[in-house]
Formats: sequence, structure tokens, C-alpha cells
Amino acid sequence: MPEIDFFTISPLDSRYRASNPEMFAAYAAYLSEEAAVRYQAKVEAALARALANRGICTPEQAEEIERAAAAVTPAEVQEEERRTRHNVRALVNVIQSKVSPASRPFVHLTATSVDITDTARALQFRDAVRHLLLPQLLELWDLWAAIARREADTVQMGRTHGQHAVPITFGFAVAEYVARLGGRIEAVAHAAEELRGKMAGAVGAYNAASLFFDDPEEFEREVLAILGLRPGSVSTQIVEPEYMADFAHALISTLGVLGNFSDDIRHLQRSEIGEVGEAFAAEQVGSSTMPHKRNPWNFEHVKSLWKVFTPRMLTVYMDQISEHQRDLTNSASGRFLGELIYGTALASDRLSRVCRKLVVDRARMEENFNRTKDMVVAEPLYILLAAAGHPDAHEAVRRLTLEAEKQGTPLTETLRTHGELAPWLERLSPQQVEVLYRPEKYVGIAARKARAVCDAWEARLQALRGGQVG
Amino acid sequence: MPEIDFFTISPLDSRYRASNPEMFAAYAAYLSEEAAVRYQAKVEAALARALANRGICTPEQAEEIERAAAAVTPAEVQEEERRTRHNVRALVNVIQSKVSPASRPFVHLTATSVDITDTARALQFRDAVRHLLLPQLLELWDLWAAIARREADTVQMGRTHGQHAVPITFGFAVAEYVARLGGRIEAVAHAAEELRGKMAGAVGAYNAASLFFDDPEEFEREVLAILGLRPGSVSTQIVEPEYMADFAHALISTLGVLGNFSDDIRHLQRSEIGEVGEAFAAEQVGSSTMPHKRNPWNFEHVKSLWKVFTPRMLTVYMDQISEHQRDLTNSASGRFLGELIYGTALASDRLSRVCRKLVVDRARMEENFNRTKDMVVAEPLYILLAAAGHPDAHEAVRRLTLEAEKQGTPLTETLRTHGELAPWLERLSPQQVEVLYRPEKYVGIAARKARAVCDAWEARLQALRGGQVG
Amino acid sequence: MPEIDFFTISPLDSRYRASNPEMFAAYAAYLSEEAAVRYQAKVEAALARALANRGICTPEQAEEIERAAAAVTPAEVQEEERRTRHNVRALVNVIQSKVSPASRPFVHLTATSVDITDTARALQFRDAVRHLLLPQLLELWDLWAAIARREADTVQMGRTHGQHAVPITFGFAVAEYVARLGGRIEAVAHAAEELRGKMAGAVGAYNAASLFFDDPEEFEREVLAILGLRPGSVSTQIVEPEYMADFAHALISTLGVLGNFSDDIRHLQRSEIGEVGEAFAAEQVGSSTMPHKRNPWNFEHVKSLWKVFTPRMLTVYMDQISEHQRDLTNSASGRFLGELIYGTALASDRLSRVCRKLVVDRARMEENFNRTKDMVVAEPLYILLAAAGHPDAHEAVRRLTLEAEKQGTPLTETLRTHGELAPWLERLSPQQVEVLYRPEKYVGIAARKARAVCDAWEARLQALRGGQVG
Amino acid sequence: MPEIDFFTISPLDSRYRASNPEMFAAYAAYLSEEAAVRYQAKVEAALARALANRGICTPEQAEEIERAAAAVTPAEVQEEERRTRHNVRALVNVIQSKVSPASRPFVHLTATSVDITDTARALQFRDAVRHLLLPQLLELWDLWAAIARREADTVQMGRTHGQHAVPITFGFAVAEYVARLGGRIEAVAHAAEELRGKMAGAVGAYNAASLFFDDPEEFEREVLAILGLRPGSVSTQIVEPEYMADFAHALISTLGVLGNFSDDIRHLQRSEIGEVGEAFAAEQVGSSTMPHKRNPWNFEHVKSLWKVFTPRMLTVYMDQISEHQRDLTNSASGRFLGELIYGTALASDRLSRVCRKLVVDRARMEENFNRTKDMVVAEPLYILLAAAGHPDAHEAVRRLTLEAEKQGTPLTETLRTHGELAPWLERLSPQQVEVLYRPEKYVGIAARKARAVCDAWEARLQALRGGQVG
Repeated sequence: MPEIDFFTISPLDSRYRASNPEMFAAYAAYLSEEAAVRYQAKVEAALARALANRGICTPEQAEEIERAAAAVTPAEVQEEERRTRHNVRALVNVIQSKVSPASRPFVHLTATSVDITDTARALQFRDAVRHLLLPQLLELWDLWAAIARREADTVQMGRTHGQHAVPITFGFAVAEYVARLGGRIEAVAHAAEELRGKMAGAVGAYNAASLFFDDPEEFEREVLAILGLRPGSVSTQIVEPEYMADFAHALISTLGVLGNFSDDIRHLQRSEIGEVGEAFAAEQVGSSTMPHKRNPWNFEHVKSLWKVFTPRMLTVYMDQISEHQRDLTNSASGRFLGELIYGTALASDRLSRVCRKLVVDRARMEENFNRTKDMVVAEPLYILLAAAGHPDAHEAVRRLTLEAEKQGTPLTETLRTHGELAPWLERLSPQQVEVLYRPEKYVGIAARKARAVCDAWEARLQALRGGQVG
Repeated sequence: MPEIDFFTISPLDSRYRASNPEMFAAYAAYLSEEAAVRYQAKVEAALARALANRGICTPEQAEEIERAAAAVTPAEVQEEERRTRHNVRALVNVIQSKVSPASRPFVHLTATSVDITDTARALQFRDAVRHLLLPQLLELWDLWAAIARREADTVQMGRTHGQHAVPITFGFAVAEYVARLGGRIEAVAHAAEELRGKMAGAVGAYNAASLFFDDPEEFEREVLAILGLRPGSVSTQIVEPEYMADFAHALISTLGVLGNFSDDIRHLQRSEIGEVGEAFAAEQVGSSTMPHKRNPWNFEHVKSLWKVFTPRMLTVYMDQISEHQRDLTNSASGRFLGELIYGTALASDRLSRVCRKLVVDRARMEENFNRTKDMVVAEPLYILLAAAGHPDAHEAVRRLTLEAEKQGTPLTETLRTHGELAPWLERLSPQQVEVLYRPEKYVGIAARKARAVCDAWEARLQALRGGQVG
Repeated sequence: MPEIDFFTISPLDSRYRASNPEMFAAYAAYLSEEAAVRYQAKVEAALARALANRGICTPEQAEEIERAAAAVTPAEVQEEERRTRHNVRALVNVIQSKVSPASRPFVHLTATSVDITDTARALQFRDAVRHLLLPQLLELWDLWAAIARREADTVQMGRTHGQHAVPITFGFAVAEYVARLGGRIEAVAHAAEELRGKMAGAVGAYNAASLFFDDPEEFEREVLAILGLRPGSVSTQIVEPEYMADFAHALISTLGVLGNFSDDIRHLQRSEIGEVGEAFAAEQVGSSTMPHKRNPWNFEHVKSLWKVFTPRMLTVYMDQISEHQRDLTNSASGRFLGELIYGTALASDRLSRVCRKLVVDRARMEENFNRTKDMVVAEPLYILLAAAGHPDAHEAVRRLTLEAEKQGTPLTETLRTHGELAPWLERLSPQQVEVLYRPEKYVGIAARKARAVCDAWEARLQALRGGQVG
Repeated sequence: MPEIDFFTISPLDSRYRASNPEMFAAYAAYLSEEAAVRYQAKVEAALARALANRGICTPEQAEEIERAAAAVTPAEVQEEERRTRHNVRALVNVIQSKVSPASRPFVHLTATSVDITDTARALQFRDAVRHLLLPQLLELWDLWAAIARREADTVQMGRTHGQHAVPITFGFAVAEYVARLGGRIEAVAHAAEELRGKMAGAVGAYNAASLFFDDPEEFEREVLAILGLRPGSVSTQIVEPEYMADFAHALISTLGVLGNFSDDIRHLQRSEIGEVGEAFAAEQVGSSTMPHKRNPWNFEHVKSLWKVFTPRMLTVYMDQISEHQRDLTNSASGRFLGELIYGTALASDRLSRVCRKLVVDRARMEENFNRTKDMVVAEPLYILLAAAGHPDAHEAVRRLTLEAEKQGTPLTETLRTHGELAPWLERLSPQQVEVLYRPEKYVGIAARKARAVCDAWEARLQALRGGQVG
């Protein structure tokens, strides 16, 4: 592992690199400037191969170019760019300098710079998703599904508006995220596979390729097929921006699910609630002056990453607008897109690490439940009274609740003193009555649903595992 | 048409209402508070019907409730809400007040407020898209496709970075938008049809419904099927927010396409370019002090709407986060979502109106083309020299270009004086040479592609026409 | 009060209008389209007066124009605009139709449309702030200051990361908002007074005015002075957008303070915490199916408004960019700016209404405090040990804390069993020791600071009360 | 200069570092993680010194701590953090490890982590602005002012809506930016100097400091005074976020001015307009396939940076919300704030570099002007007719314009044929008439104003030069 350089402007390249250097290295292999050059060279190689397949150059020349492209280093390109001030021209020059004079003309032939860079970026992002982000999100999904199944029967007070409402199980609460993350994993995988390349030239009309081919669209498909990509419907100098916008939306909305989960858990970690916790490392410091504190800092971190990356969707929307056959105002902004992938990865990785050691305090859950379980009865009572024919059940229960609260007695106690309600109560079935006296039974189908959600999504996501994508 | 009230805070309800009162009325029938109440009553009616189907109440009672629901007025609900301070409770009370005492208990039975409001909103938005927005966007698509086909052969200088690049045809330029809008129409239609309802109760675990049914999920499906909706995978008090986020993304990214088109056209209307124009009404005023001006104000207006609505995607992302089984911080924000639909409609309508009378000045296009057509030759020259085996074609042409520029002669003239290039030029085919001397031929497959794009998308979009959606 | 129309697209004009019709009417008098026309007419009147002062027209003609301007109705202008399709031209025509032929030429003379509309908008917003928003925010400030002072000594557990930290007082917690809101009130007032007008013509170079005056900048100052405004440093067709951006930032960052306060309070209302509550109206419904619930819906509403309006700052930043002497892409977007003021007003009004009846449950605060007060001691213990010379106090206390936690004994009990710490403890002053055994004393200067903050800001804000602004 | 590492996630740390390595190094000295550690150590040193001044430790101990703090390396802290998982605790441990046992307790005494990090960040940002950003922005201002003065008399067609309007001078157009940038420079400088530190402990109530001092606020002021900072009005664990929000707004709105300037210039570089250009380096490549192109890529780059950074303001607004005495969800997001400064610097630097060699093509400006100068006359004609008493001048000129356009004759020619206008024209002064026939005279006070704006802002900005700030 190389020494990490802390002399960077972006925390991604120092502090958050240091927090997981292996992950950093893995993603940088797809998302760094170095990776961009490598992928761009790969696109140049595919172009040469396709030219050879069409007989424009010889197979040997294509092979020579492929070898040269594989040998390009970012430093060489950078050096050359200092002279040309044009990154793709620099790459082309470097490749040309590594092949025989006879092969040189076929490097980049018919292509415009953005044919190379847009295609490379689509590949970089698709590969980063296929090989890294997707497995990582699926790992998190597995962890959440395991918790949902394990805690499927653990009764927890449901909370709406931060107020105790009616019961659920903790597994059911987690199953919400199992489903939502499942949906977003599908969205990310789909959008990544939908990223497109192009080989349509400077303004998208295949002007240059048409000098050689009657069917330049077919030639474009051939080049991209070598790379495992497809072209869009029609491009200008750039690929239609909506493919990237959809991809960015998939990432950002995934971050939204991770952010919501994190908020839920950190609130469940509040001192007064304490239903969930992170296991702490023995030497870890909770606070510099309050050594007793156990802060939900990992969940806070994920929420913070959500804040960092979510607004950047606006940049992507702004980049939908490019004048005529293209202005270059999406150039710098496009270079930052990889950060969205890495930001999602950071959040997902952090959650996986902490969810692996997530501690559920069932006793505390029960204790919290018991604190208001009596009031919970209000809902089924109102509903059962109504169904039994009471003409104004909602109002009756509201008044009963206020009375119970004032007297400090359980609602069911208060209920007994209200003989006028007896006729309706008598119509209830034994199971219905049981719920009134054992509110922990009033969990609906929480447990069953928790398991069913996990099963259903496990089956759906199966298709995305083991590289079957694409 | 009622008198328009200009005493509003939002320009949507006065100035932009006045700009097209019929469209306003059409959309408000789905998106207004009045519409919300109407749709919510419809959901209550469906619930009663489903309860009857299950034998919880009688068919007659369900019918009574359906009739009452259909008779509810927003004013009644508003009046009642002033007392209860709870909008759905108010609605329920109003419906109950319109049915016999025996039927009252079955109004809203097993439901929580959000079962009604989230389901109603999904319906409102889906219907607004089906009946209004989709036809409107398809109409714009038709207009654009007509222009693309009509101008498929009209040579225009392609522009990248605002600079003349290599030629396209104007129809090809418009075909870019035909494809991009086509894709977004599919996205909007798909996302609208994917909006989901729920009938899973206060915390999503079907607590109340389980008091009556062993299969409350099936019951939920039955209620929603009456309305033509499906439930999501798992809900809390609210439907999983990703369905709405995807829908909002589809709208916002559609606005991005409309915004880009508008920018392109307004730049083509610049005094110095003048290739496209709006036909002006005889009495219209261009400027209060410069009566000679013909401003591209409709396109500017669309770009401005893009600025208004695009940032609001952030609100939608924020609403992905709702604590535990729900906090209410998405309540006000959710009420503004309909504005995204209406904003897209306003932009689309404006574009349709102006594209119907879009004037293409072919003479001006040719004039602009001629101004730099000689320099255009640089690209094919460089490519053909390279393909013919010249070892450093790019550099050779760059120098030639500078020389031509300095001498003020056409590039092809300068070319003739450079005998050292003759060996390579001799290897070119007649068609290849022709392009060097007739740059307007260097349009690639622009014309063919423009037509093909229109044809392909016409076929794809056929499925969305005539109400086959859903 | 007129019947409220629920057939609107924006909830601001129906639902949120109904929630406080008086406030709506008050703000619409400055922010509606109707108000815009009225203010624009006022600017035309000021221009006429200034022309008369310079002898371009007669005082009688100016007076005639002033009277006509005062009589203009939005309906007339709307009617005329349908013909001219230009709003300011329509206004000018209407005014001209109300004056004698001899006075007509002097209506709007030397002005461009935006001279009128930008100046009018600056006035509208400044007046809305002066007369409505500022008093409203000051009223909220008063309510918060009253709570801060009243609860200055009420010990509350301080919370960081949602975890009990060290004590504060509730008044101190509120004083944070007293200071932050105070700062924002100053920012809003300042930015509103900094809004500028212009009378510099179509491109900002006073081209038209220069036909009549050698000192057109002085003439601009004269027109604006009549309205109580100043010009900016240099304008194009529009006023430099930074004045409005600063104003919008002041509003949005004010909403941030209101949002944060709301989040704090709604979390303090959580069932498990329960330290603060809203007094409920007798007939109010907490939940349609859970009649026992008391939701913090007002605070949730304010947070939701924060989500609605905060992203709109991006629109304002986008409007900083206007090509050359102006493009019109800020036209629609500019019309929505008034919503930022009204959104801030809605949030502030809601908070004032609920803070007036905010109930502090001191018993519950104490109960929560007592739950962890023993652990609180860790911080002063560590600090005092350190100051007394212990070489590794932080680590010592961390271990002690873990031990106390494991044994379930108070930290101070555990402390007694650790004789090795005695030498350091003996060096402490009696007051220092007291804190270890009475953690409620470990509140620092919370109470004093709460009062001092209120006093200091009361003095600062005095200047903004009673119309001394400007 | 060290080899640049291209294996980074953020382009700021590789590609944009390589574009100006000296600038990168200069800013990283304030904004990197390394810099953060160095500044945090500086705050710890100041705290020790203040403790000594109060007699809590000896001057020798303070000096020992100061020396140790100065010797801390980020690598050490990083190493220690891997153990403690707490960055400030790690820093404290490292400092303590470098001092004698007797001095150790006084390291960090009374402080909480955020006292150190928030104070350090305020210092970092303020210093980066003072020493780097401010001089850089002033340099850009100087370049713009020089252009504005140099071109003060260069007549250019004013453009609104992209349409020729009435004349200005190019210097006047640039003067708009001279004023706007001047205003933003003041705003940035002011907001940077307004950044505040704190030493108020874990919840802002000075709990720890109160163990030692009766006047802990005064002690806070003493610590901060050593660093040249002031405290805010009241803090929680963190400094009130509005100071940072104001600072971020100042930066983002500065970027807006740079973005607008860039848009203006790149449009003026359009092939059809060509009034302004960048001087090109001899070996620079304009396009990989179109060697003749001269793209406005520097201006496009600045616009792109504007898109990258502007949406991030939303992150800052989200960070205004921190629950109770603080949640940690602003931790990661806060670390990215330095990128806003660097982004502004990148944009400013790029503009300075290109504005130094900005080429104004006066011949082309005149040519463009001449193209429509005849139509320009419409505005003064209408105004002068009106002032001369014509009852419907606007309509008369509108018709005249249409007629001239249809006949293809100059407006003034057409005018001569309309004898009915003669009576009004006779009333005009010779200067007024001259404008009708020499439209280049119709520039208002553009030239004078351009110079006056430069002079006025030069005087205002003088105060910010030469380190007089703060």
C-alpha cells in the first residue's frame, strides 16, 4: 500500500482514501484520470481493430495499434498534452509515436475526440458498477436482508411523526429498506448497462466515416460491439445526455435510501430510545472530552455524504443543455461524475461495515413498547367499534383516550367503565378482542411480510449476481 | 371562462393561467386542491366497494358511500377541516354525514389517511399524464418530427463551441431532439404508470386490515385494482418514495430536453445568425422602446421555466428521507409536486405553439455556411491524407490552415501550392476528392439519419398513443 | 373575506391561503400580479414627476399621469396585453388612454420596460419586508426570546449526536436560535434595503435619457429617490442580479434557522423524550386512525416548507447569468421570486402560532436528565484530573466509564474504588468537586448566557423596529 | 515540483492540479487535510498560551506545547487516528507524546474537538482568502478594468435577447463586470473576515471552561485573539452555521459573475460574431479532427466549473440544520467546503490567464454594428417623436420599421417619405437629429460611465489591497 498523500484538495483523495485504501485503489482503477487514459486507449484500439475488419488497414496494423494503446501511460499523455493542450490529440500522438509510420494514419481515423472520451467514460462507469458498486450494494442488501429475517418477529413500536403509533416488528422496518434498496440496485444496474458510446464524428452525422463507408452507423456498432457497448439513438458531438442523467439519478436516489436508513438508525440510537447500537472497538474514542459517549457517527457520516452528493444532480441536469452540436461547458463538470459513483460506494461501504456489527437491544425495544402499548389499543378499538356498527367510533375513542390520559389509567381499564360501549364490544371475535388486551399482537402481518419481501427481492436480484448483468 | 384572479402569490395561478386558461382548467382538474379532494373521495369509494366485495359491509352500503363520495365538495371538506384540523378526517366526516348511520362505520374502515392521499395523488398524476401531458408531449414530438423531415436535406453548418465545425442538415439537428424527446416521453409515460397506491395502514403492516382479513395484501390489491393501480413492494405509512422520485426525474429531464432545444433555437435567432425565427403577430410588440426587435421570447420563456423547476428535484430527493414509519416533513412539499407536471406542460405548450410557426431561413443558412465552408475542408482533408498514408496529416493540415488564414485564400487553393502533398491526394477516390471541393457534400448521412430517427421513434411511440398506455 | 378558490395549481393560492387568509391578503398586496401592475404604475408616475421637475413636461402633465397611473387596474392591463403581448407596453397604453393627447408622449419617456419592472419589483419586495416580513420575524424573535428567558434556568440534558452529552438549560438551547434568528433578521432587513432600481434604458447606457439630459445618472437618481430607492453601480437592461441573490440568500438562510429550530423541537416531542409539546385544540384530530396521537405537525410543516423553498436558491444563481445586455431567460423565473418571501412568511407565522402555546415539560426534562446524569460526570472528571496533573486522564476516565457501565454503578461510585486517582482528586477545589456529585451544576454559564444573548440581540434589533429601517 | 499523481478520484487533485501545480500547492497549504492538521495544532497552541496567561499552566509549559504543536505531522496524526478513530483525540495524543508528562494535561484542556476544528477551519479559509483568493480576484479585476478603460470608446452593438438593440461601447459592457466583480470581491473579503471560531466546549455553554474561569467567554476571546479571530454570538458544539453559509454564498455568487462573463465572451467568439478571441499558442490543437477551429474552451471551462460548484450551495444550506447541540451530519460535508474556494480560484485563474491575451476585433465589431445600425434608429426616433408631442410614436415607428424592412431601405430613408412626421421632427435639436443619422453616436454615456465605474471601484477596492484587510 503506497503512502497516502494528505496534500490534496478533495477529502476523497486523502482522508476518505485513508479510511479504506483498498476500496480507493479498486475504484480509482476505473474512475481516475489514469483510468480515463487507459480506457480511452482501449477505445482507440477497438477503432483500429474495426478499421482492419473493414479492410481500411491491415490486421497487423490494427494489432500494432492495439499493442501501442495498451502500452500508453498517463504520464506520457500528460507530457504531450502540455504541448498540444488537447488531451485526446495528445493520446493519439503518443499512440502514433509507438507504431510504425505506415500504421500511424489509422490511429483515430474517422473519430472525433469525444467519440473516444464519451465512449471511454461509459465503459469506465459501466465497469465500475459491474465489478465494484453492484457487488458492494448487493453485499449491503444481504446484510439488511439478514437483519430483516433475523428480527422478523421482534416487536417494535412503530413510529410516525416521531410518535409511538402502532406496532411493527424491527425486521419489518428493515424490510422496507430491503425492498427500496433492491429497487435501486436494479435501477443502478439497468442505468449503467444503458450507458452508450458513440463513433459518429464531430457533429454526429458520421461525416468522416462516410468518406469510407456507406453504412457508417453499422461501422459504429462494430467498434462499440468490440467494447461491449451500443450507440445511442442519435448523437451530436456527444452522446445524448439523458443516459448519463438516468444513471446519475439512479445513484443519487440510491444514496437517498442509504441516507434514510442511516437517519432511522441514528434516531433509534438516541439515548432515550437506545434500541439499536454499533458495537464499539475497544480503543475507539467516542468524544474527545466525553469519553462515555457512543455516537452514531457512521450513520451520521452516511447522511453527510448524502448531503454532499445529492445536490450535484443539478450539475447533471445543467449538462443536459449543450448548444447546437455541442458546447464544451460540460467538460469540467463531466470529469466530476465519477465522484457520484465513489460517493455512493463510500456510503454503501460504511453502512456494510457498521451493519455487520449492528446490535439490536430487544429488551430496550420491549421497554419502549411497553411504555405506550396501552394507548396503541386506541386504533384497533376505534376500528372494531366502527366495524361493529358504532356510529361515531372515532370520536368516542378520542374522548376515551383523553379521559384515560387524564386519569392515568390504561385505556382498556377506562373502557370497562364505559358500559355504553358494551353492545358493540360483544360483537367482536375472540381474536379481535385479544388484540385490545395484548397490543403486541397488533402487528398485522409485519413478520410474514418482512420475510416475504426478502424472499421476493432475493429472487429478483439473483439475476444481477455473478456477472450475469448485461 | 371565469374572470382570472390576479391576486395570487404564484404566477402559475394568474399570469400563466391567463396565458392559456383552457390548459389551466384542464390540468387543475387533476392537480388542484379541489381535484385532490375529488380523487380522495374516489379512493374512499373504492375502499367501500372492496369491503362490500369481502362481505364486511353490504353492496348497498358500498353504493351509498360511493354516491356520497361522488357528491363531496371541497368547500364542505375545507369547512369541516377548520374544525378538525385534519384534512382526511374532515373528508371522512363529510362522507359519513351523507350516508345512513348504518353505513357510516364502513367509511374509511381499515384505512389510514395516507392510504387515501398517497393513492389519490398517484391517480391524479397518472391521469394528468395519460390524459393531458402525454398527448401534449406527443403533439410537440409530431411538430419536431415534421420539421426534421421537412428540413432533412437543408444543409446547415454544424456548430461546436459556437464555432463553425463541419456540415449537417437542419433536419438532422432537429432529429436529435426528436430522439431525445421520444426517449423522455417513454420515460414519463413509464414512470407515471409505475406510480403506486397503498392500503396498508398507519405503519404499513396492515395492522387494521388484519383485524378482518387473513390476506390483507390481497385486499389492498383489490382496492387498488378498482382504481387501476398497484401497490408497491412494501410501504410504511407512505408509499416508497422512489416511484415519485423516478417520476419527477422523468419530468425534470424532459424539461432539460425542452430547455436545450430552446437554447439552440434562440441562439440561431441571434441577429448575426438569423437562421430561424418566430412568425410575429401583426400587433405584437417586440420591445417597449425598440419596436424593431423580434425577440425569441418564447424560447427564453421555456429556458426560464427550466430554471424554475429543475432545482426542485432536490426537494423530491429530500423527501426520500422520512424517519421511521414516516415523519410528516414531506407533507407540504408533496403538495407542490403537481407544479412539476404543470411546469412541464407550460413549457411543452409554449414550444408547440411557437414551433407550429417556426420559420427557417434557408438563404441565411446557406449564407452562413458559405462564410466558412472553405475551412470545413480541413477535416476531410486531414482524414483523407491520413488514410492515404500521410505520416502526420493532422499537423500538416493545421499548418496549411494557418497559412491559408494568413494569406486569406481558400484552403483548397493553398493546398494546390503544396506539391509535397500531391502523392497522397492522388490516392483518393473521386467521391473523396469531391468533398474537398464541394464541402456542402460533407454532411455524412445527416439527411438519411434525420428521417430514420423520425421513423424509428414514430414506431416506438405508437404504443403510447390512443390511450393504449397502462 | 372572499370565498377561497381551491381550483389552483399552487397550494400557496388555495390550501395555504385558507390556512391564514388575512396573511395571504396582506402579502398578495405586495407580491401578486395585481400588486406588480400597481407598483409598475407607481414607477411610471415617478418617472413623469421627474420629467416635470426637469421641465420636459409640465407639472400638470405629470400630475395627470400620476392620477392615471393610480387608476390603472390589472384587468385593463391584462386585456391590453392580450393584444400587444407585451406587459409593460400594455401598461403604458392603458395609462396613455387615461390622459390627454398632449400628456401621452411623456408616459414612459426615456424608459425601457425593465426600468419599470425591475424597479417595481425592488419596491414590492422591500415594502413587503418592511411592512410584513420584518415585523413577523421580530414577533417570532420576541416569542423565542421570551422562552429563552423564561427557561434560562431550566436544566436540560445537552445532546450531541442524539446522545446525552453534558447539561445545558433549555433557555440556553433556545438562545442559540434567538441569536441566529437575530442575525438573519438583520441580514434580511439589510438585503431588502439594498435592493436597487434602475432608469438606465434598454442596455444600461442611458441612451434614451441622454437625448435629453447631460447627466442621465443624476436623472435616474431623481426618479428613484421619489420612490425611496437607489440605483446600482451599473446596470445593463437589468439591475445587477447580485442584489437579488443576496436578498434571496438572506431569506433562504433564515428558513434554515427556522427549519433547524423545528427539527429540534419535533425531536424533543418524540414519545421517548417528550420534553416539549404543542397545546392541542380540544376538537383537533391527531390522526385519522390513531386518535391518541399528538403529532408535531406544525414543526414538520415548517421543515417541509424549508425543503420546498431552499433548492430554489439555485434558480436565483442561474439568473445571475444573463447574456450580454440581457437575455430574457430570467423573466418567468423572476416572477416566482415573491414565493420565497411568502414561504418564509408561512414558516415564520406557523412557528409564531405554535411557539405561543409551546408547553415545556420540566418534569420530563429532569427525568431524562436523571437517566444519564451520572455518566455526565465523565467530562468534568477527565478535565479536572487532567488539570490536576494526571498524565493520561482521558484514557483513565474512558476505562472507568466502561467499568461503571459493566457494573451498572454510578461513575462516581466506581471512582471511589479507584484509590490510585485519589491524589489528583485531592487537588480539586470544593466547587470543582461539587460538580462531580451534582452534575446538574455542570451547566457552565448556560443560564447567564441565555439572558445575555437575549439582551444583546434585543438591543441590536431595536434599530429595526418601528419603521426606522431604511 | 513533485510528480503529479493521476490516480485520484477528484479531478481537482490530478488534472486540474496539473493545469497549474503552483496554484495547487499554494491553496493546498491552506485547504488540504495536511493543512487542517497544521492549523488545528496551531489552535491547540493558542489554547495552551491562553491557559498560561491565566496561570492554569506555566509559560514554559505553554511554550513546550507550542513547540510540540508546530512539530506535528499529519502522518503521525493519521497513524494515531487509526487507533483512536477520532481525529482530534489523535492530534492531542500526538502533541502530548511530544511534551513532558507535566505539560500533558494542559494540552486541549477545557476544549472539545470542534472548538479546535471549527476554529481551525475558519482560520484556514480566512487565510486562503487573504493570502491567495483575494489577490487573485483583484488581479482579475485589474485585467477587466484595463480592458474596460482601453475599450471605453469602442462602439459595439448592444444585445438583448441575442438581438441587436442599441449601441454601447465594449468597455461599457466590460465595466458591468468590473462593478459586479468589485461587489463580489468585497462580499468575499467581508464574509471571510466574518468567519468565527469558538472555545465554548462540548455544548456551547462553556461547561468545562467554567470549572476554571468565572468569565469563560472572556477566556474564549483571549484564545481566539491570539489567532486573530472572534467568537460568534453563541455556539453549540459548533459555530453558528450562518457565518459559513454567508461565506459560501459570497463564493458561489462570485462564480456566477465569472460564469456570466464567460458566457458573454464565448458568445462573442461565435463564428458569426467574432468580436473577441483568445490568442492561440503556436502549437495548440483546437480540435482533434478540425485543426482550423479556435474554440473558446477557457470560457467554456469556467462556465463548466460554475455548473460544478453552484449546486453545492445546497449542501451548505442543509448543514445549517444540526439537531440540538449538534449532530455530526455536517462532518463529511464540511470537509468538502474548501473545494468551493479552490473552484473559485480555478475559475478566476483561468479567466486571468485568458483575459491577459484577449483580442478585441474592432473591425468585426464595427462590421456587426453596421449590419443593423439603421434599425437602431427606431428607438431614438420613437422617443424623440414622443417627446416632440407625437400622440402615438411607438405605433408610428413600429409601422415605419415594418415598412423599411419590407422595402429593404434604411429606416431614415423611409422616414423621409413620411411627410406626416415632419412637424414633429422639426422640433428636434441638432444633436437629437444627429443621432438619427449617425447611430454610432447613440451610445448614451457608455464611454464616460465605463471609466467612472472603474475609477469608483478602484477606490473602493483599494482598502482590500496590500493586506489591509481585517
